[in-house]
Amino acid sequence: MKTIRIGILGLGVVGGGVIEIINRHREKMKSHAGVDLEVVRAADLTTERFAQLGLSPQQCTTDAFEVVNDPNVDIVVELIGGVGVARDLVLAAINAGKPVVTANKALLATYGEEIFNAADAKGVDIRFEASVGGGIPVLEPLTHALTGNEITRVMGIVNGTTNYMLTRMTDDGLSFDEVLKEAQDLGYAEADPTADVDGLDAAAKIAILASLAFNSRVTLDDVYAEGIRKLSATDIEYAEEIGYTVKLLGIANKLADGIDVRVHPTMIPCNHQLASVNGVYNAVYLTGDFVGDVMFFGEGAGAGAAASAVVGDLVEAARAYQSGNKVIGCTCTDNLPIRPLDTLRTRYCVRLIIEDKSGVIAQLGAVFANYGVSLKSLKQRGAAGAGQVEFIFMTHETLEADMQKVLADIAQIDAVHEVASVLRVENLD
Amino acid sequence: MKTIRIGILGLGVVGGGVIEIINRHREKMKSHAGVDLEVVRAADLTTERFAQLGLSPQQCTTDAFEVVNDPNVDIVVELIGGVGVARDLVLAAINAGKPVVTANKALLATYGEEIFNAADAKGVDIRFEASVGGGIPVLEPLTHALTGNEITRVMGIVNGTTNYMLTRMTDDGLSFDEVLKEAQDLGYAEADPTADVDGLDAAAKIAILASLAFNSRVTLDDVYAEGIRKLSATDIEYAEEIGYTVKLLGIANKLADGIDVRVHPTMIPCNHQLASVNGVYNAVYLTGDFVGDVMFFGEGAGAGAAASAVVGDLVEAARAYQSGNKVIGCTCTDNLPIRPLDTLRTRYCVRLIIEDKSGVIAQLGAVFANYGVSLKSLKQRGAAGAGQVEFIFMTHETLEADMQKVLADIAQIDAVHEVASVLRVENLD
Repeated sequence: MKTIRIGILGLGVVGGGVIEIINRHREKMKSHAGVDLEVVRAADLTTERFAQLGLSPQQCTTDAFEVVNDPNVDIVVELIGGVGVARDLVLAAINAGKPVVTANKALLATYGEEIFNAADAKGVDIRFEASVGGGIPVLEPLTHALTGNEITRVMGIVNGTTNYMLTRMTDDGLSFDEVLKEAQDLGYAEADPTADVDGLDAAAKIAILASLAFNSRVTLDDVYAEGIRKLSATDIEYAEEIGYTVKLLGIANKLADGIDVRVHPTMIPCNHQLASVNGVYNAVYLTGDFVGDVMFFGEGAGAGAAASAVVGDLVEAARAYQSGNKVIGCTCTDNLPIRPLDTLRTRYCVRLIIEDKSGVIAQLGAVFANYGVSLKSLKQRGAAGAGQVEFIFMTHETLEADMQKVLADIAQIDAVHEVASVLRVENLD
Repeated sequence: MKTIRIGILGLGVVGGGVIEIINRHREKMKSHAGVDLEVVRAADLTTERFAQLGLSPQQCTTDAFEVVNDPNVDIVVELIGGVGVARDLVLAAINAGKPVVTANKALLATYGEEIFNAADAKGVDIRFEASVGGGIPVLEPLTHALTGNEITRVMGIVNGTTNYMLTRMTDDGLSFDEVLKEAQDLGYAEADPTADVDGLDAAAKIAILASLAFNSRVTLDDVYAEGIRKLSATDIEYAEEIGYTVKLLGIANKLADGIDVRVHPTMIPCNHQLASVNGVYNAVYLTGDFVGDVMFFGEGAGAGAAASAVVGDLVEAARAYQSGNKVIGCTCTDNLPIRPLDTLRTRYCVRLIIEDKSGVIAQLGAVFANYGVSLKSLKQRGAAGAGQVEFIFMTHETLEADMQKVLADIAQIDAVHEVASVLRVENLD
């Protein structure tokens, strides 16, 4: 059995985890999977990591290109992240004909077309299971076991930080600011939490999922992303009262006229399988024409989980490399249009803070009627402040464009103090 | 692209589904997966199926061996089921050097060693995703994406019929007999429901899962199987009161001294991910040393779901066949012992019907104390009949052998009218 020589770029916690797995399970992978993996080179700017991970000085460098270009490296693992040097390194590895394993969701959601086209032209294998859902096997089943299906929907709780925050807000009634601080203290959220709380991390992941599921390139820019900053414990509490849970969902639907793809806080029925995915766990829920509904659940973050996915990819890349198995490309040959958000049809739950005076309901009702938006329910909740009350409207399915006009007009009504929240509602059936 | 020629043995609903998928998605699979699948031969004893499925008389036969031995057939799909002729056919295909795709859980859980050894000796690919969990991709991720892990636990709700029945008993308080009749009327349960309700179907599936997860052969005979016949709505109702749900779980643990493998009705915490798997849905829950907990959820039954899994296997088998990719065998090289049920350590919930007279609690307490079984709680529920009451004991973790002695002694106490139920309790942490 020929040893497959691995070069790792980036020795953070995931890179360290990959080395640990190979150290612990190398013999097992030889006997079970028929491949012998060895980390022969590694690059990192933090040179103390080399000795910490048991690497010899000869194996290590601060110049990642040296690893990519080393003729003794068969497969390159890119764990640097970001869309700068990581892009150059991945392209360099592809040009050198070396299979690449990466966890870099931002890179693939931004420069996927360039990277996959380059890989396809060279017949080079590129694998990225760790880029979505941490250790959960989802991209491999989507492109292999489920390949007999037309996938029409992919949805996911794909950001562990925000799911942890929403779970705490739901279970303990905490505010966004309180749970953000807690998540930062626990190391779940970054000092700059933008990528997580504004939905950008989830947007990159749903872009990757949609690209694979629908065989049509979806980039980060294509995804409407709305995060959880404006969400309050009140919204979550009200959702619960009527049998819903609030989750930050990435949603992608393949419709007759194109792809609907978005990330936003979403009210989903409490009895749906995704509703019980709590804490830092992630889950991806798919619908195919033959398989029906399938869900993949697990740890979406953490060094061990991500390293597990990277090593799974390494084993497959190594097996294909040593057998000369033809690679399934990710070139996305169906070029489906992206539907503008305006064309979305869904239900909305709107919470308003209103001055408690007569005639307001009539004014509001006129606005909804004016744009043909039909109401399913209207509820008044106790005093929101001196002389103020809270109104919660739930609409029937309606057009996003119409809903936005309704909201703009409502904001102009004198008695409306605040449009406190607007949540999209998915029935998921 | 060379066309890969498929021969199907057995044209029931799953076989029909496979033909439908290939008819609908053949071009898609060519462009996405790089393989061209064509059903060239088929065998069934019900000759009317041939025309129903659009097959020409020349393609069809009632002699399945004719299909296996046809030099124009590259890959054989076995969908006859059972452990009789199916075994001969699968071995004949292997001997002819032809890859086999099968959904036959009973065959693999009974003659797995013979079949996988034969396949390994011939270097022949054998795939069986549809044998566990219907359309849910679980065997492929277990043996591929998760291969960097030592798997220490596999649990599953792997029988849709009993899960449907338990869900109805839980939601609507129906009796076992009522839901069995309903399940039979709906076509979810067979006229002879033994394989489902006595846990034998689930036992075959957990045997296959454990064999793959632990790389050690587990056969149907190794699995302690207890079904749901004795379960009452009262047991489920009481479990709910204290925060538990009752599920028929297949459970396999890899412990220091061997494999613990069993199927029985199990009380699990309501907030566990498996607790919300309801109706005919299935789920498999795994724990690995790096990936942590992972769950796969989906439709465990139904022609479309199973056909989806068969076609996923066909695509992989075809890719390996045309590229000469070395097959990962299923020979299970670790020969771990199976732990006897007596050595199990778990918690128990016991419901007794007792004559309402003084001194009974002291007698019961003495029996528990005699075998060192420690009680977590004791609860008396209203009158169970004239002069009778219901006692429910929950134990701390204890040895199965001790618990069986306790139960035998309790049954001898005059005042004990009936040991109404004994449920094992898993905390799953």
